[in-house]
Amino acid sequence: MLYHVRMDVHPPRDLPQAEFDRLKAAEKARAIELQRDGVWRHLWRIAGAYANFSVFDVPDHDTLHDILSTLPLFPFMTIEVTPLARHPSAIG
Amino acid sequence: MLYHVRMDVHPPRDLPQAEFDRLKAAEKARAIELQRDGVWRHLWRIAGAYANFSVFDVPDHDTLHDILSTLPLFPFMTIEVTPLARHPSAIG
Amino acid sequence: MLYHVRMDVHPPRDLPQAEFDRLKAAEKARAIELQRDGVWRHLWRIAGAYANFSVFDVPDHDTLHDILSTLPLFPFMTIEVTPLARHPSAIG
Amino acid sequence: MLYHVRMDVHPPRDLPQAEFDRLKAAEKARAIELQRDGVWRHLWRIAGAYANFSVFDVPDHDTLHDILSTLPLFPFMTIEVTPLARHPSAIG
Amino acid sequence: MLYHVRMDVHPPRDLPQAEFDRLKAAEKARAIELQRDGVWRHLWRIAGAYANFSVFDVPDHDTLHDILSTLPLFPFMTIEVTPLARHPSAIG
Amino acid sequence: MLYHVRMDVHPPRDLPQAEFDRLKAAEKARAIELQRDGVWRHLWRIAGAYANFSVFDVPDHDTLHDILSTLPLFPFMTIEVTPLARHPSAIG
Amino acid sequence: MLYHVRMDVHPPRDLPQAEFDRLKAAEKARAIELQRDGVWRHLWRIAGAYANFSVFDVPDHDTLHDILSTLPLFPFMTIEVTPLARHPSAIG
Amino acid sequence: MLYHVRMDVHPPRDLPQAEFDRLKAAEKARAIELQRDGVWRHLWRIAGAYANFSVFDVPDHDTLHDILSTLPLFPFMTIEVTPLARHPSAIG
Amino acid sequence: MLYHVRMDVHPPRDLPQAEFDRLKAAEKARAIELQRDGVWRHLWRIAGAYANFSVFDVPDHDTLHDILSTLPLFPFMTIEVTPLARHPSAIG
Amino acid sequence: MLYHVRMDVHPPRDLPQAEFDRLKAAEKARAIELQRDGVWRHLWRIAGAYANFSVFDVPDHDTLHDILSTLPLFPFMTIEVTPLARHPSAIG
Repeated sequence: MLYHVRMDVHPPRDLPQAEFDRLKAAEKARAIELQRDGVWRHLWRIAGAYANFSVFDVPDHDTLHDILSTLPLFPFMTIEVTPLARHPSAIG
Repeated sequence: MLYHVRMDVHPPRDLPQAEFDRLKAAEKARAIELQRDGVWRHLWRIAGAYANFSVFDVPDHDTLHDILSTLPLFPFMTIEVTPLARHPSAIG
Repeated sequence: MLYHVRMDVHPPRDLPQAEFDRLKAAEKARAIELQRDGVWRHLWRIAGAYANFSVFDVPDHDTLHDILSTLPLFPFMTIEVTPLARHPSAIG
Repeated sequence: MLYHVRMDVHPPRDLPQAEFDRLKAAEKARAIELQRDGVWRHLWRIAGAYANFSVFDVPDHDTLHDILSTLPLFPFMTIEVTPLARHPSAIG
Repeated sequence: MLYHVRMDVHPPRDLPQAEFDRLKAAEKARAIELQRDGVWRHLWRIAGAYANFSVFDVPDHDTLHDILSTLPLFPFMTIEVTPLARHPSAIG
Repeated sequence: MLYHVRMDVHPPRDLPQAEFDRLKAAEKARAIELQRDGVWRHLWRIAGAYANFSVFDVPDHDTLHDILSTLPLFPFMTIEVTPLARHPSAIG
Repeated sequence: MLYHVRMDVHPPRDLPQAEFDRLKAAEKARAIELQRDGVWRHLWRIAGAYANFSVFDVPDHDTLHDILSTLPLFPFMTIEVTPLARHPSAIG
Repeated sequence: MLYHVRMDVHPPRDLPQAEFDRLKAAEKARAIELQRDGVWRHLWRIAGAYANFSVFDVPDHDTLHDILSTLPLFPFMTIEVTPLARHPSAIG
Repeated sequence: MLYHVRMDVHPPRDLPQAEFDRLKAAEKARAIELQRDGVWRHLWRIAGAYANFSVFDVPDHDTLHDILSTLPLFPFMTIEVTPLARHPSAIG
Repeated sequence: MLYHVRMDVHPPRDLPQAEFDRLKAAEKARAIELQRDGVWRHLWRIAGAYANFSVFDVPDHDTLHDILSTLPLFPFMTIEVTPLARHPSAIG
């Protein structure tokens, strides 16, 4: 099932640069892994913002929550989830 | 270039059913045509709402505005456009 | 899967009373049917408002959207859907 | 009487991890106790957020406030309370 | 139990003046009756607005909803309900 | 004259507990004094929140501002003031 | 006492032009009268909007409400009232 | 002096098409005239919306208000005005 | 030209009291100077808040911005500026 | 292609003055360079605020995001991007 997700990242000022770099690298590795697994289906940067629009394909809400809440940058994110249904005019 | 678009449809109460049906059919035909042309890249229904999240792939802002503003249901829509940049963690 | 749903009803002024009564009766019949089927798991009135908080248990987003969008009062509702995951402190 | 409650948790950055772990464990123990007592009737995680939707069954507002304001994580929560009335279409 | 209630009245333009006058008179009679019964404990006009802040004293949510939803002007009101608990610094 | 006041308290994390306790005790003493003087006419806790709805009876705006701005917890409060006029349906 | 007032005018589409002209003329006459009486102390147009910022000087809330609620255009206005206290840095 | 202006157009449903066409033509003629006079310095369409961002260059607020409030589509517009000062990093 | 200005002051917790006192004294001196010069035409305290409504009379936007951005408390203020035009019903 | 951009700067309290001065100088140098290159087409200060309205002319979204996200003050900015299409009434 598809979920539309918006993530806004608010890294705190007092996060040491080295730790932030480590978290960003871990986030990137996790994002790539989930994309390769077909779970993180789309990942777009919102132009001008430290934020993204994403689409996830997971079997249920619990799986989605487990994935999102274990992202390395999760503690610094505001996340908004919208369930996506099939659109009657969509093709393919 | 990719644009994220949210459309909310608010059909007016006094729209005759026949005209509304005609407009919806025209909207659907146009949506299918634009998807086949690779322009309307994604079209998802927001669950529980008369609304959609979409992604368009067009060469520039003018083309996007021309397409959106000539949709049959455009007069009854609220539309929000967000430019999408490439995400540094996106693959493929 | 569980979905939290808030519905606010805004019946239009020009809806003839007889039609409104018919729609409300059909809505009530459908709500009772869906509760008996175990689909509409909870239905509470928000005190002081023509609105409810509900919890639905359906297999996927498409089923939820089909159910909500065919409710007799759907054209007059504003609906907000939130996917519910299992809470780590929940029992039973 | 039933109350719908939304809780959003915003743990402060400078909370030592050990104290936070202790507070979360105490919160969980209290949540389980209140569920077993039939007071905290429902507890759902909002997917993608450090937040929950809950339903409490208590005799009056004072009891509700006492329970909520003594939750171990209360100082870090934003809480929204909505009184729930019986819905005319609810069964059982 | 006490409930804080804000009511904003939005009389529709197409309501015939005679019907509106009749509704306002019925609303006033009902308000006086409920005040005499000790149920509608406070009723204040918000200066400059067709709105009021009120405090109701009723045994439970269902009673409150029954009272509010049968007010003659209810169809034209936006109502916001807040449960009031005893304040630890309140006297008397 | 009557003023409706909503106060939300946001105690800062870095306030030493002893100072906070001292401020709360001073706030309570002041609230009791003002209630005894008939100035702070009503004081209710908003259930589930560190906030209150209050009604003040003072001769003018300057007096109200002097009272509110010298409350011990004023530096940590968000305050919203609404002037109350006599309601045409109020009795007594 | 001084009150800051913002008024936004939303004339309904179906108001006959002659009636609207009559109401505007009555509103203007009333505004001039109240300014001459020293009650409507300031009246400024918000540039680009059918709206004004005003300052009223009246003895109490009831007088303010009586004045505002009997303005000829009151039924088509949204009004926001803010009580003004003396500023410690104000001169004169 | 420069003013940043956002205009959103909300044509009413019951406006006859011929009158709307006449108003749009008059609006366009006026916009072209004001651009040629150097008053309406910039005029951009907000992609996907019946709205524009504009910059006006006029000697004072009164002139701006006179121009905006006499635009043929003014009765159907929501307008937001922001005064622009010289930016210390601007060149030319 | 007249500008309506709302200023909300949010002094940071970590500002040493002596520096804050110095800034407030400087702010007051500047406010008095600007009032004597006829520039800061009105200055009112918003009752119950650390905020004011003001009216400035300056020749242009740049002068207004220079004045506001050099106020001693400017770094701790949220400021909202509204250009004021002459109201057709204003006298004097 | 043109993009309308609003930037609000929120410099953190704990940023050392010397570093802030260095960042502002670097921001100014970069802004001048981009203006000279014809990329940062307009740059206006919003009167009374540490904020600007800008218009950028870049070939695509990725270029815009690269430019904005590498501005020296980017970590302290809130940025809102709006794609601008040609307006049918625009001349030149």
